[in-house]
Amino acid sequence: MSSIPERFSGVLSPVVTPFNKHLGPDADRLISQCQWLLSQNVGLAVFGTNSEANSLSVEEKIALLDRLVGSGIDPLRMMPGTGCCALMDSVRLTAHAVQLGCAGTLMLPPFYYKGVSDDGLFRSYAEIIERVGSIALRIYLYHIPPIAQVGISLDLIERLIKAYPDTVVGIKDSSGDWNNTQSMLRRQWDDFRIFCGSETFLLQTMQGGGAGCISATANVNPAAIHELYTEWQSENAGELQQDLDNIRDQVMAYPMIPALKSLVAHFTGQPEWAIVRPPLVELDATRSNELVDSLKRSGFSMPGLG
Amino acid sequence: MSSIPERFSGVLSPVVTPFNKHLGPDADRLISQCQWLLSQNVGLAVFGTNSEANSLSVEEKIALLDRLVGSGIDPLRMMPGTGCCALMDSVRLTAHAVQLGCAGTLMLPPFYYKGVSDDGLFRSYAEIIERVGSIALRIYLYHIPPIAQVGISLDLIERLIKAYPDTVVGIKDSSGDWNNTQSMLRRQWDDFRIFCGSETFLLQTMQGGGAGCISATANVNPAAIHELYTEWQSENAGELQQDLDNIRDQVMAYPMIPALKSLVAHFTGQPEWAIVRPPLVELDATRSNELVDSLKRSGFSMPGLG
Repeated sequence: MSSIPERFSGVLSPVVTPFNKHLGPDADRLISQCQWLLSQNVGLAVFGTNSEANSLSVEEKIALLDRLVGSGIDPLRMMPGTGCCALMDSVRLTAHAVQLGCAGTLMLPPFYYKGVSDDGLFRSYAEIIERVGSIALRIYLYHIPPIAQVGISLDLIERLIKAYPDTVVGIKDSSGDWNNTQSMLRRQWDDFRIFCGSETFLLQTMQGGGAGCISATANVNPAAIHELYTEWQSENAGELQQDLDNIRDQVMAYPMIPALKSLVAHFTGQPEWAIVRPPLVELDATRSNELVDSLKRSGFSMPGLG
Repeated sequence: MSSIPERFSGVLSPVVTPFNKHLGPDADRLISQCQWLLSQNVGLAVFGTNSEANSLSVEEKIALLDRLVGSGIDPLRMMPGTGCCALMDSVRLTAHAVQLGCAGTLMLPPFYYKGVSDDGLFRSYAEIIERVGSIALRIYLYHIPPIAQVGISLDLIERLIKAYPDTVVGIKDSSGDWNNTQSMLRRQWDDFRIFCGSETFLLQTMQGGGAGCISATANVNPAAIHELYTEWQSENAGELQQDLDNIRDQVMAYPMIPALKSLVAHFTGQPEWAIVRPPLVELDATRSNELVDSLKRSGFSMPGLG
């Protein structure tokens, strides 16, 4: 592909990955889920943290990407996660996403070795960019220190933008630290797309000139999150934000990925959706029902799903 | 292979992995290094943390294993690291090591997702064991919370030993916390092999009934570490321990992996040895010379290397 994809804005979901009872990825179910998310105006950050991406092998991710694009899902709405621990894995997966025409890739730094320098991380991203060697490559950096432990500093972002202004085009900030997102927004890097990693910060992010959010909860509450994205300048934006926070707080009272999958299982009527890969563990039936009941009392549903 | 390998004891080295200037693994150089380590009575924990194992893809590790065994290196002296983030990667690499006849594998828990439960980690190890499905599989657990962040609790060890007594046969404790090693030793699990992750604790580990150590510094100081392993009951064991600590402290004043590779580069006369993969960064010449000079003043050398 030699076309230059547009930069992302709006709401994207790190799509949860369905498994069968043998713990293999279920491509058909993933395709349906992606189609539903697109119908809710939410883009597809497949292979994010909440997709259990790092419990999938590169081969499994490549096979799923092929199936998604092969099924007619628009790669221009896709921002797969492609950052792995091993340089050659990141290169291979990223190159494959670019070949399929994905409009962007969300890229973790290599996350096993701790206490690494900005020089080392710069070199890591630079090697991937040079080896993929495509003008169609668009990288959104993925800053998630609570989980990856290896973070992306403001200086590193600036250095990458300077070296690769047409390739390093955005970031997802999942630090959970509004001060960090705000510091990035204040740098006003030219057309650099800043996404908050939780809709909790969506209104503030939009007010600060950000591009949107990429949030786990967009798996289950996409329409409402997208509504705040489009309505952030309206009078009732504060109220919309409160409604989002209310739903999110209820989900976050449980382990995030099992909780999201429980909800999808319930609202699709497909119990297999609840399956997670180790090292994660499913919610038990009691807690799962508790979560569903609590959300239903808030008027929550997932219309059109399943 | 259906033969039952003996359990390990002694000193093993997480062998540093050589790269060429294109950052590809250099199998020939690795073979030479392994041969030298064996000549120093040190076993081969290839693909450990200090091997930059988590900067290598599964394909690269399989290719290197094939070359090592193909070159005549005894797989009964090999304990490759085979624990990856993704279940299927761990299964594939572990099965390959078993097929080649490796006497053990050193297995990290999946390390991306944090705050996971013992239930989830048990299930992860159990899935790997069941899927590899070989009576020749011997797993040494790898506890290294400072880097993996995901640790292995005493309860988890006990549960795994109970479920798989002939498969889960040992642990490397790289917590850096002697109290943890001591707590494990005191449980006196039947013929369970406990290795400290640093020779700093070798004498104490042997006195407590442990099996030996698997230490980064065994890449450069193998003979002296092995000497303490054989002489731990002798009168001068305390002195030998002090000598080891003196060398280790000097190396640890630098980033560990670049420092080890600098030393191998110097003492082999092969500057390519200094190359590291991102996100690591080489020691610069000044610091590298400083380290070499400091060690030489302590009478350090690497006889027979190169």
